[in-house]
Amino acid sequence: MDYAGIFKDALNAVHREGRYRVFADLKRVRGSFPAAQHYNNGPEASRPITVWCSNDYLGMGQHPAVLAAMHEAIDTVGAGSGGTRNISGTTRYHVQLEQELADLHGKEAALLFTSAYVANDSTLSTLAQMLPGAVIFSDEKNHASMIAGIRHGRGPKRIWRHNDLEDLEAQLKQYDRATPKIIAFESVYSMDGHIAPIAEICDLADKYGALTYLDEVHAVGLYGPRGGGIAERDGVMDRVDIINGTLAKGFGVMGGYIAASRDCCDAIRSYAAGFIFTTSLAPTLAAGAVASIRHLKSSTIEREQLQQRASEVRGRLMAANVPVIPCPSHIVPVLVGDPVHCKAVTDALMTHYGIYAQPINYPTVPRGTERIRLTPSPVHTPEQIDHLVASLSALWQACPLAKGEYVRLAAE
Amino acid sequence: MDYAGIFKDALNAVHREGRYRVFADLKRVRGSFPAAQHYNNGPEASRPITVWCSNDYLGMGQHPAVLAAMHEAIDTVGAGSGGTRNISGTTRYHVQLEQELADLHGKEAALLFTSAYVANDSTLSTLAQMLPGAVIFSDEKNHASMIAGIRHGRGPKRIWRHNDLEDLEAQLKQYDRATPKIIAFESVYSMDGHIAPIAEICDLADKYGALTYLDEVHAVGLYGPRGGGIAERDGVMDRVDIINGTLAKGFGVMGGYIAASRDCCDAIRSYAAGFIFTTSLAPTLAAGAVASIRHLKSSTIEREQLQQRASEVRGRLMAANVPVIPCPSHIVPVLVGDPVHCKAVTDALMTHYGIYAQPINYPTVPRGTERIRLTPSPVHTPEQIDHLVASLSALWQACPLAKGEYVRLAAE
Repeated sequence: MDYAGIFKDALNAVHREGRYRVFADLKRVRGSFPAAQHYNNGPEASRPITVWCSNDYLGMGQHPAVLAAMHEAIDTVGAGSGGTRNISGTTRYHVQLEQELADLHGKEAALLFTSAYVANDSTLSTLAQMLPGAVIFSDEKNHASMIAGIRHGRGPKRIWRHNDLEDLEAQLKQYDRATPKIIAFESVYSMDGHIAPIAEICDLADKYGALTYLDEVHAVGLYGPRGGGIAERDGVMDRVDIINGTLAKGFGVMGGYIAASRDCCDAIRSYAAGFIFTTSLAPTLAAGAVASIRHLKSSTIEREQLQQRASEVRGRLMAANVPVIPCPSHIVPVLVGDPVHCKAVTDALMTHYGIYAQPINYPTVPRGTERIRLTPSPVHTPEQIDHLVASLSALWQACPLAKGEYVRLAAE
Repeated sequence: MDYAGIFKDALNAVHREGRYRVFADLKRVRGSFPAAQHYNNGPEASRPITVWCSNDYLGMGQHPAVLAAMHEAIDTVGAGSGGTRNISGTTRYHVQLEQELADLHGKEAALLFTSAYVANDSTLSTLAQMLPGAVIFSDEKNHASMIAGIRHGRGPKRIWRHNDLEDLEAQLKQYDRATPKIIAFESVYSMDGHIAPIAEICDLADKYGALTYLDEVHAVGLYGPRGGGIAERDGVMDRVDIINGTLAKGFGVMGGYIAASRDCCDAIRSYAAGFIFTTSLAPTLAAGAVASIRHLKSSTIEREQLQQRASEVRGRLMAANVPVIPCPSHIVPVLVGDPVHCKAVTDALMTHYGIYAQPINYPTVPRGTERIRLTPSPVHTPEQIDHLVASLSALWQACPLAKGEYVRLAAE
């Protein structure tokens, strides 16, 4: 067997499709993020850039209270937790963080995972096994981690059209009430910026006797009076059975979780391999997350500035005829529609304008919908916004993308 | 559907079997670990204990160089990375850490994951999909994360008897040479302390044309002249195709990885959903891990003390007729063989002696082999060892476990 040849073939396929990924080697400049240094041409040739594609949406990864809490935890207890949650890896910080998260979502309990990917994968697969015969109704744009969890659960699944209540209902009504059902969906879809009609989905769940599983990864910290997400903003947190969230985006740290009833969290805690058999979060991460969540429960300025910046960037790019995909959230996706062109545009942004926006290609988005995904934040200055708009306008005017089919696609 | 009732039933089953897990709520005392405070009776009633079940095997989670590197990274770049590796989440620290790990294992490249669980799950499932028809030969005692990866790959698998070369060969020879094969095993099996015959397994891999996938999670940092693991100790690192390791045990921080050929790592990097779709490790963790690995590449005192402590604890407990399961590694498992008794013993240790050793029960070990798993380390003092030996001796003398069938099981 030529194993080396097989690895090479797999890589050649990625290269052929123009979607081979070169990671940008970065070093943020703390205190002046989104400023960072870019090291891809070697440490000696590093140059300053502005990050326009971070999911540290509110800049909380730079917040003094978060950093102070992380330093304090390292000084108090050290580096790693040293064990799984069951075997010496539960600390005061983990217990406090789970209480903070339960309170954030108005639930009885919360359960930490090493990431929201693992939280989705572990929880959905365990739910499917705990509810034999359960049918999972999954929005077609659900994140890879939910798809993984549903597949790993090995139960029946039905894919419903993205945010389409009619299609969801048509599929739900094909099963009798005694069949266990889980409706799995997201609040903010990160690559398109769409927002789900949570209340209406909960209505259908009630009507057909389904559990609701909501991924709020791109919404926690960002929406709702206390940062509880879109479900909090819409006043429907109590109607969602299980909420999944992350500590790594709006909260600026790392890790994931679910919030739900005490028994639900306890059952997942007791059965999910991806929870049981892994070292718990480093205490410093848990401490930083507690500080971030507490800050965002009372401070609303970050959320207001985020929306203001997003709306400004979107409006000004549209006015400049850059093909922004319209959406109601804080994400600003710009359609290119071809992996090679998408990389050419972002390479030009990096090289000529010092703007870092990673090209988004398959498998993150469907082929043919390659895009640049901009994430304005409260820490982007007016000057940085001016420079972004001017740079993208110049590129689009100079470039055939501005006149071709990609713009038509964007308008659809 | 009574979903609440189903969660309740699942929990009742765990309670009935006596394996409901109550996590110990701890706070280490940095600088004097394994000392910690135990908070389960409320923050006001916390009491001092000694941790005897941590996987921070060398105490590196307390090492000044590790903590200094973590502080420095927080001060330099902030809290979280803010993105997946591809979308703004690759930093100088990640790049340096992957270089450090490749060097540690004498491989061309390394690839970071959020945990070694995710590294196993993602890599094995992706390998199975990249090598259609590949048969995975899995040691029957492989960790849950390898089992998950093999299952998620959906390819054919064969379970071979633990560390049994004859059985492995008998199964390998049932397939012709053109069938792709992966032999998946561990170097140190953490619950029994067994060590695999790596060289002989590599001989079989050569003979039958198989890839070798070795989990060194309980060995990296601990064995080999530079902490490269059992494969380094045995001089066979170059014969193993893919090495899996953790940053959360011997290295004292958090995170996992694989080390392999450049193309193999690049292919996994390009195809594995569990790598692609998740926020990268927080920079502070990567920085701490680099410091820890560098320290242990040159310092051997921690490894020597670990073995000396383990051997002393094992010898003295055996002399006191406590049923230690014999093994050649640094783990000291004490057999109890019943989940309820196991918890009774560890509760007594905690309550009466201030010794924290978590009961290990199903699903971590097979039912009927419940045990106490002790992990001596360089940071345990002679006085702490005396106290452990005296406490366990006293418990075993006072208790019917010392005379019953559990001791016979231990002798088998």
